[in-house]
Amino acid sequence: MKVLITGAAGFLGQRLARELLARSVLKSASGTLEPITRLVLLDVVAAPDFDDPRVQIETGDISVRSVLDRVIDADTAAIFHLAAIVSGQAEADFDLGMRINLDASRLVLDVCRARGHRPRVVFTSSVAVYGGTLSDVVLDDTALNPQSSYGAQKAIAELLLSDYTRRGFVDGRVLRLPTISVRPGAPNAAASSFASGIIREPLNGVRAICPVAPETRIWLLSPHKAIDCLIAGLELDTAALGERRTLNLPGLSVSVAQMVEALRDVAGDAAASLIDWQPDPRIERIVGSWPGHWDTLRAERLGLSGDRSFADVIRAYRDEITP
Amino acid sequence: MKVLITGAAGFLGQRLARELLARSVLKSASGTLEPITRLVLLDVVAAPDFDDPRVQIETGDISVRSVLDRVIDADTAAIFHLAAIVSGQAEADFDLGMRINLDASRLVLDVCRARGHRPRVVFTSSVAVYGGTLSDVVLDDTALNPQSSYGAQKAIAELLLSDYTRRGFVDGRVLRLPTISVRPGAPNAAASSFASGIIREPLNGVRAICPVAPETRIWLLSPHKAIDCLIAGLELDTAALGERRTLNLPGLSVSVAQMVEALRDVAGDAAASLIDWQPDPRIERIVGSWPGHWDTLRAERLGLSGDRSFADVIRAYRDEITP
Repeated sequence: MKVLITGAAGFLGQRLARELLARSVLKSASGTLEPITRLVLLDVVAAPDFDDPRVQIETGDISVRSVLDRVIDADTAAIFHLAAIVSGQAEADFDLGMRINLDASRLVLDVCRARGHRPRVVFTSSVAVYGGTLSDVVLDDTALNPQSSYGAQKAIAELLLSDYTRRGFVDGRVLRLPTISVRPGAPNAAASSFASGIIREPLNGVRAICPVAPETRIWLLSPHKAIDCLIAGLELDTAALGERRTLNLPGLSVSVAQMVEALRDVAGDAAASLIDWQPDPRIERIVGSWPGHWDTLRAERLGLSGDRSFADVIRAYRDEITP
Repeated sequence: MKVLITGAAGFLGQRLARELLARSVLKSASGTLEPITRLVLLDVVAAPDFDDPRVQIETGDISVRSVLDRVIDADTAAIFHLAAIVSGQAEADFDLGMRINLDASRLVLDVCRARGHRPRVVFTSSVAVYGGTLSDVVLDDTALNPQSSYGAQKAIAELLLSDYTRRGFVDGRVLRLPTISVRPGAPNAAASSFASGIIREPLNGVRAICPVAPETRIWLLSPHKAIDCLIAGLELDTAALGERRTLNLPGLSVSVAQMVEALRDVAGDAAASLIDWQPDPRIERIVGSWPGHWDTLRAERLGLSGDRSFADVIRAYRDEITP
């Protein structure tokens, strides 16, 4: 089976590639396990090739049709479309967000349609498609009301994928991701970047800024579970999904104060004291518009599961970075 | 005040133009009444100029930027964007629907953004943005789940208008229209075309085909009330609208059987017997996915009203066509 990952040089893209290579098989559309014979990794910069002969590295701008024409052919059975401009950057650069989050997503679908082979396509979406006045628990049929350009672009990509699926151009699935924490590496331009930073930096003995109030509630998923859900989402039986191709992934609903308490439990008072509380109204406005909890019944029925506790998530991250 | 209507050669466009010329004033963004000094009517074919010196006729493809650059300038204070590919045609010709219903709508917003003067923009949307399993009454916060490409394209245009408004590029409002009945003239490619045909044709002594079952429930608005709502929607105070720029217009919830009974009341048994019941699964699937009723509390609070009875709507139509 030939598989494509877009945004493959990113954090989730690299982890997904590594996991797919380790598993070495994917469930096909007919339900049988098939070996992954080719894994195409596309990004604007070269993704790591994992020294694996199955990997094909491709670089290029995903909003350019010729780039997608090069990496999607009639043998491409599965596509994980992860390439995106993150929330903070899409708010700062409207045109860039529109070009990558909207136009490039549409282009992925259009190139699949031109091939005519109806590949399975996973789009990642986000808590940011919700907003405005929300009930405590967001349900599958809660209306989208994005309060950021990133959220609007993701909501539009969801609608496109659903219609292209309904018309038989692709066999699509949208997975709405909670905020991913703990991300390794450097802070990024996502409004939610702090949700990793306030754990990651103190674990490394470095001070971290928290731009939102302690009572801010966040809906979280660990990178490990996110990757499991992405693969399970692709493998989901088309019939089980039915007409609604968008799935809210399970998460943990925690306040920022609870995140810091979990950090204290795992790494002690010294780590927890390394956080500087510096409210940033721009970030508070965006993050505050996201739901702190959504109903996960449908995802669980389909066999997708989240994390058990945030302290466990921190421990798993610590064990991973400890040499 | 300079006003632009796109899709101005269409049925609603012509009626809106005539009504605006008759009123001769529009409430400005600051709430004062201002004379309409220029009414630009854009369509692919020339709209009637009503022999009025305020009217400027423009023809061109609305999905071409230079056409919109020509008709929107920094003096254009109000835009009614009515140009669209109707539901049946957008389902039959996917690319055409995407180009006009999505790309051209975005282009209208982008040209306004380039001008930098934040005009008021009215988009028309539709019952077709809803679909799937719906409760008896659709609420303002019911999730969109379009089951047609037309519905998906309208839902996307809604999201675009909301985000361009949030960012201050336009002062936008989306009015979700019920099915409009009774439309004069010939049948069109809309899946809902029959909702006018089963009244209009019998009133002219001509047989009409009804492609859906008598119990099918439809959410209706007369052309007269639709035009009133379009103008009231443009004039709505920005502060009263708040963050949610999409408004479900009031309608009448009637079954097709009740529509035929109203026809019988107004025009007698002979007219009602001119309907041939010939189910068309393609049309039943599309129309059956639309809500038969939605909550109109918000629209009513904002001062927008619908029709009192469908028999009255038929009488008004009959009086209009009677020489």
